[in-house]
Parts: sequence; structure tokens; C-alpha cells
Amino acid sequence: MTSQESLSREKFRYEQIASDIATLIEKGTYQPGMQILSVRKMSQQQNVSISSVLQAYQLLENQGLIEARPQSGYYVRTASGEDFPEPEISSPSLDPSHVNLHDLMMMAMRDSLNPKLTQLGAAMPNLELLPTERINRIMAGLARTASKDIHGYELPPGLEELRVQIAKRAILSGCQLSPGDIVITSGGVEGIHLCLHAVCKPGDIVAIESPMYFGTLQILEVHGLRALEIPTNPRDGISLGALQFAIEHNPIKAVLTISNFNNPLGSFIPDEKKKDLVKLLARYDIPLIDNDVSGEIYFTEKRPMVTKAFDKKGLVMLCSSFSKDISPSLRVGWVAPGRYKNTVEWLKFTTSVATGTLPQMAIAQFLESGGYDHQLRRIRREYASNVALLSQAVTRTFPAGTRVTRPSGGFVLWVQLPENVDSLEIYKLALENNITITPGYLFSPTNQFSNFIRLNAAAWTFPIERSLVRLGDLVKESAEHGKSLY
Amino acid sequence: MTSQESLSREKFRYEQIASDIATLIEKGTYQPGMQILSVRKMSQQQNVSISSVLQAYQLLENQGLIEARPQSGYYVRTASGEDFPEPEISSPSLDPSHVNLHDLMMMAMRDSLNPKLTQLGAAMPNLELLPTERINRIMAGLARTASKDIHGYELPPGLEELRVQIAKRAILSGCQLSPGDIVITSGGVEGIHLCLHAVCKPGDIVAIESPMYFGTLQILEVHGLRALEIPTNPRDGISLGALQFAIEHNPIKAVLTISNFNNPLGSFIPDEKKKDLVKLLARYDIPLIDNDVSGEIYFTEKRPMVTKAFDKKGLVMLCSSFSKDISPSLRVGWVAPGRYKNTVEWLKFTTSVATGTLPQMAIAQFLESGGYDHQLRRIRREYASNVALLSQAVTRTFPAGTRVTRPSGGFVLWVQLPENVDSLEIYKLALENNITITPGYLFSPTNQFSNFIRLNAAAWTFPIERSLVRLGDLVKESAEHGKSLY
Repeated sequence: MTSQESLSREKFRYEQIASDIATLIEKGTYQPGMQILSVRKMSQQQNVSISSVLQAYQLLENQGLIEARPQSGYYVRTASGEDFPEPEISSPSLDPSHVNLHDLMMMAMRDSLNPKLTQLGAAMPNLELLPTERINRIMAGLARTASKDIHGYELPPGLEELRVQIAKRAILSGCQLSPGDIVITSGGVEGIHLCLHAVCKPGDIVAIESPMYFGTLQILEVHGLRALEIPTNPRDGISLGALQFAIEHNPIKAVLTISNFNNPLGSFIPDEKKKDLVKLLARYDIPLIDNDVSGEIYFTEKRPMVTKAFDKKGLVMLCSSFSKDISPSLRVGWVAPGRYKNTVEWLKFTTSVATGTLPQMAIAQFLESGGYDHQLRRIRREYASNVALLSQAVTRTFPAGTRVTRPSGGFVLWVQLPENVDSLEIYKLALENNITITPGYLFSPTNQFSNFIRLNAAAWTFPIERSLVRLGDLVKESAEHGKSLY
Repeated sequence: MTSQESLSREKFRYEQIASDIATLIEKGTYQPGMQILSVRKMSQQQNVSISSVLQAYQLLENQGLIEARPQSGYYVRTASGEDFPEPEISSPSLDPSHVNLHDLMMMAMRDSLNPKLTQLGAAMPNLELLPTERINRIMAGLARTASKDIHGYELPPGLEELRVQIAKRAILSGCQLSPGDIVITSGGVEGIHLCLHAVCKPGDIVAIESPMYFGTLQILEVHGLRALEIPTNPRDGISLGALQFAIEHNPIKAVLTISNFNNPLGSFIPDEKKKDLVKLLARYDIPLIDNDVSGEIYFTEKRPMVTKAFDKKGLVMLCSSFSKDISPSLRVGWVAPGRYKNTVEWLKFTTSVATGTLPQMAIAQFLESGGYDHQLRRIRREYASNVALLSQAVTRTFPAGTRVTRPSGGFVLWVQLPENVDSLEIYKLALENNITITPGYLFSPTNQFSNFIRLNAAAWTFPIERSLVRLGDLVKESAEHGKSLY
């Protein structure tokens, strides 16, 4: 083949690649919201030049089928219509603040228990997608055969077989952990609570991503800690510049992030930036509590790394759980608390003695017997698709001026409503329509997000779609009404 | 029958009653340590006068078969030999103190996990006596049939079916509770932790029985609270006079008791005194956190009441769990927090979200299906007997100058060693002999009990007996050695 022939062959190839991908999208192999192969991987796989792949992806972008996301890659677009823009980076107050949100949170918690309401707010995983049948079989088997063993205390650090499995999987997120580095907790929230307790005392300042999952804000409230909200980009997470500035001007005792798929943003801190974050905190000797509870639910091409992977000083306290991808009710999570391990272990023993034995055994057996990865692939595919479908529905039904996140993982959507819409007003109107959403107020101790709402995209059904349309109408009416008032 | 005849008949009767009881003790129907029928009940049952029964009991006392315990009743004696006296009422410092015991506690905790050691210290229930097989069958059944239901969050206040069962049983302890008064926790310790958190802030003073279960002291340490130790009688618990004095001289924010069978004392506050305690605290508006975790394991004639039964102002926070009488590893406890219910519920949700669903369902089903009382009767009988056997063995093997408690319930024995013996020294010597005991240091933040040890009487086996004999030798040697030094 002459180089001329090779060139024209390449020209043909990029069109072929674009056409193949378009077919895969059409057939649903590539779901809306999912990442497609990176340029480098596609080039290797198809044995064509990088520039040909770039041309192919350009073509698909022009056709509105995929979209580039900076520092992340190419994703299948959320189809039809003009998309709403994303929310901008948050710009919270420069001063730390005590948290006082518990009445609002308990209200939201009670809503989530009400079976009469369509649950568009609470970040409950979709039980239909969880391996409940297999876990039940394992538990029934253990209850039949393990006899008395399942009734003794499994004191901290927790069941060794489970810690072995967790350490094994940690390698996939770039992390070298030994079973001895891990403390089992009763769910992820207990882990964060123990970590904060281990490194802070009442009145201390904790820097957090803004917005931040309200459950974590509540833990700050419980411990009498002050939150310093750091501007956070809906795509790549906490602003390191702003964090450094905050550190230089405040006696910050800990930093709290959800580096893989912030709840509610769906943002994720790229691995290189994670490294810089860990380095920055190492310079000031500040512990980082990183919540990786959604780390396995990525729409990106591969498992993102965890900040702990870059931790040389034992300052990173990595928290995770199996509540989002195996079972919420087993109440099994874990912490790799670095240099604070002894303290975390002591706090765990003192405040709750032990985590249940049977749930630990069941999860260890499930992880050991394989099938977890299969399970996770299914969850990722479904959640990416449901997030895209929900996002499309918001685009169709919400008024102009709305902004919507482009989550890189997890299963929630963060929606910025027009300026004049109040999320608590929408919360109340929705409730009258038997719909519950999570108002933005909950995600900041200083009311940064009064016109935001969080939506749960774990499931996509006809009743949910109908409720979403109704919700869109309510937002529209509220936006109109607001306009006429001013 | 003439009145003369009736009198002589009665005379004969009391001898007959004494002889019958002696036979029952000999045959083992009445085990050492168990309470026998009260004078009133025996009089009714045998249709004889009170004075005849008193004569019969006097006779049995003279024969060394039973003993009277003030304010409690008559108990089968711990047989042979001269018994050691009981420890005297504690006389702690008048000043509150911060707690700093966690290194020692974690050491004791790790020992309790070491299968090579004979466990004479840790207050672990005897798994052989628990209904593990029935619970396993129930859990296997639920796992087979309840499907997805067991995987959703069972958010605070927790599973209603279980709260209904708990409220029903509360009547037996004199307490009118509705299911709405109860918050399910992950074990009893979490309940106490949440209650303390709800009513105290760091630096506050909490009045406690002295000695006090070290796990509770650790919770004070975790929360930065100061303990004010109140003199406590090994028979009838906390001294109300001393408590009132303490309240009048210190800003006490809460009082912590184990009114039914203090750990390690085995003391129990008589019901009338409970009433006075609640009244006293009501006068000063101080919450009482009462740990009733061993309330069902009574050696007394009937279920003692709980302080909550006398609570008119919602100040009593009653804590309990199923860890000692159903299963330690299910991690299910509960709190009836009175007027602090909303706060406790909020703290529970914030720090651990929920208690596992399957364990709650399993216990609810076990309670509902009956069999719990049968189970409890067996536990009480065995523990009363094991406590008596352990007490006898201590009497046989420990040196003169030893004192031993007469527990009214539970399954631990509190042993005061001769003055010159240090319990930490004994702890170390015992460990060299593959035996672990709990040193008295752990039960006071101000080292009130350096020459005390706690022994676990949950089981009585040949290896335990052998280890106890060895322990007795170590104490003897230490007492001798100590003497020669001074």
C-alpha cells in the first residue's frame, strides 16, 4: 500500500468508525450518558491513527450524538432538543458557619418513608438493580450452616474475610491496602461520623465541597463543627485554588470531599487533580475525609482512582460502603483511616461495639464468589441511562433558565431552577401533588442553593415520568408567578 | 379443729415446709443463688400463717441452706464453707473527673478476641444458652420469603412490628410505652451514646454509679464529659443521699445508672427506691439514663420494675438491647427517650442512618411467636447457678481478705482482692497463664478499684474451673509477695 492509499483508507476508516458508533448508540449498546472508548483506546482497538479517531468523534459531535467533556472524554448525548446548560461553579461565603438544618432534614427523611409519595428526591438506590436474591440465598445458607458463629460479637476492626476482600478490590481504584488498614463500620455514614470525631473537636472548621450531601452536613452539626464551603465545579469537583486560599486564612482541621461523584453534583475529581489535592493537604498536614460510596457507579470509561492512592502520609481517611451497590439495609461500610486507625477503631468500639456479623459474612461471601463486577456493570449501565432519561425529561418540561448537571457517576441530578423560583416552595407544591423532591437548602449551611433541587435518577418508570412532567409544570408556574410579582 | 389443734398442726407444717425446700435444693430444682418464694407467696401457696413460713425459713437459714438478703428476699446459699463477705459501699472522690481509660480498654477488648485465652473477664453472654437455632431458622425463612423487603432502609424510629413487641413486653416491667415512644438502635451501647449526646455537651458533668461498666465510661470519654462517681451499694445501688448532695453541689446534666443489676456489682435498686430516685431527679429536672440491658436476667422472684415506670416528666431515658438474651451480633437495642425522643431520633439518623432490617424483623418475629419467656427462664436458672458456682470456687481458692458480691441478676461477679494486691498485676500474671480477667481500674476514672477484678460467670466448665483455681493461686502469691514487700 502506498502512503497515498493508506491516507485515503484512513479517510474512509474514520467515517466507518463514526457510523459504527452511531449504530451502537441507536441499538442502545451505548446508552445516553455513558462514556465511549477514549481516543487512544479506540485508535489501538481499530488500528487507526489518533487523528482519524478524533475526526470520527468530531463528526459524531456535529451530528449531536456524542459530546466531549473536558478532562473526562466523550459521552453519548442525552438526545433530542437543545440541552439546558450546566450550573456554574458554586461561590459560597468566605466565612465558616455552624450548621442548623436538622428540622428540614428530618422532614425530608419522613417523606422518604411515605409510600404514598412518588420519590423524586431521596437518594435511595433502586432495589430492583441490587443482587438481593443472591444475598438472600447466601444469608439463608449462612443461617442454616454457620450456627452459633453468626451470633458472637465481631469486634473492631471487623470480620477478617471481609477486610481481605475489600483490600483486594481496592487495587482496582489504585490503592494498596492491607486488611489491617481497614475498619468495618455500620454503613458509610457511620464511617464519616467516626472519622470526623477522630480528627476534630467542637468548634473546629472543616472545609467541604459546596454543595455537599446533607447527611454529611448533619454530622458536622451533631459534632458542633463549622463548615467552610469551598467553590466546587459541577464537572471536576472542589477548587484547589480556593481550598488553598481557605487553608491559608483559616485553621482548617479536616477537608471533606466526595471526589468520585459528589452528591448532588455528580462531579468527579480527575485522578491527576486528586493527586494535587492530596499533595496540597500533605503540605499543611490536614486530614482528608473522602467519601467513595458511589465510586463503583461510574459512567466514565474505567474505575476512577481514589485519593487514598496518592496518600503518602496516612492523612487520607477513605470511607465507603456497600449500601448503594449491594444492600442499604445490611448496614456494612468501611474506613481506611490511615494514621488515625487506632482512634477510629476505639470510637467504633465505644459508640456501637461492633457491626452485625451475618451481614459482614454475607458480603464477604458475595465478593469472594464473584458476580459483584457483573452486578456493577448492570447498575452502571442502568443508572447512566436513567440519569440521561431524567435529564431529557427535565429539558422537555422545565422552563427556560433551568440548568442541569452532567453527572459522571452516581444516580442523582442537580437542577438549578430559574433565579426567582424557591426550592422550598416547589417542595411544598410537589408534596400537594404527592411528589417529593429534595430542596437545595439542605446542601449548604448558608443557603447557597435556594433555587436548586436534587432529583433521584435511580429508577425510570411511567409514574416517575408522569410526576416529573407535573413537577416541570409546577416549576414553570412558579417561575411565571415569580416574574409577575417583581 | 380446735385452735389448739390448729396451732400444733401449724408447728408440724413449718418443719414440713423447711424439709420440702431442703429436698428441692438437694435435687437442684432450687439452684444455688436463686431466690426462693417470698414469705407472703409461700404462706398463700401452702395456706399457712406468715409466722410459720418465717419459722421455716429461719430453720433453713440455721442449717446454712438459704440466706436472707435485705430488701430482697431469701436465696439458696452458695453451699459449703465460710463465705467471703461482700465488698462495702464505694466511696469515690467528691470531684468530677475526665475519663482516660481507652488504652486499657482496647487491650481488654483485644484479649476478648483471643481464642487461646480462657475468658474469665469479658461480659460475653453464653452463646450456648441463647436461642441461636431458632433465630437462625427465622432469619433463613425471612431471607427466603421476604425478598427485597429486607434490603430497604428501615429508618428511625425503626421497624414498627418490633416497637410493638417491645412496648408489649414493657408492661411486665411496670412501664406503659407506646410503639411511638421507642427508637430502635444498633445495640444497647449505641442507645446510651445517643442519649448522652442528646442531653450533654463536652465538659458537662454526669453523675454515675460507682463502679460503672467501663463501656459507659468510654462513652463519657468520647464525648469529653466529666464523671462524678456516686457511692453505690453492692446490694441496692446508687446512694440517693450522696446523689442529692452531689446535685446540690455540682451542675449535673445527667445521671447514669444500671438500676437492674449494675455491671460489675450485680446490685439492683429496689422498686420503691427507683421511685425515689426518679422523684429526686424530677425535682431538679435532670435526665436519668437507665441501662436495663440485663433487666430480664433477674435472680429475684419476679421481673424488677424499671425507673421509667415512675417517670411523669419524660426525664427517664430507658436503654436496653437484645444482646444479652437473644444475640449479641444482631446489634438490636432500643431507647425510650421520653421528652428527648426527637433529638435521639435525629442523632440516630445522622450518625448511623438506620439499624439493619433483617435483624429487626427476626427479633420481632421471635418475640411475637412466643418462646422468649421460656428462653429467659433457662438463662436465669443457668446464670444464677453459674454465679453461685463461681462464687463458691472463689471462696475455696482465693486468700483471706477477699470479698465477693451477691448479684441479684446478670452474669458477672465483682471480687475485691486483699488491699495489697494490684489488679493490673494480676491481669498480667493471668495473661502469662493464658487467662484473662477484667482489672478493676476500668470501672472508675479515678482508680477507685485498683484491687478489684470482674469475673464473667456466663459459663461454668471444667477448663474455666481449672483456670479459676490457677487465678486463685496467683492472687494468693501476689498477696503473700505484697506482704513481704511492706
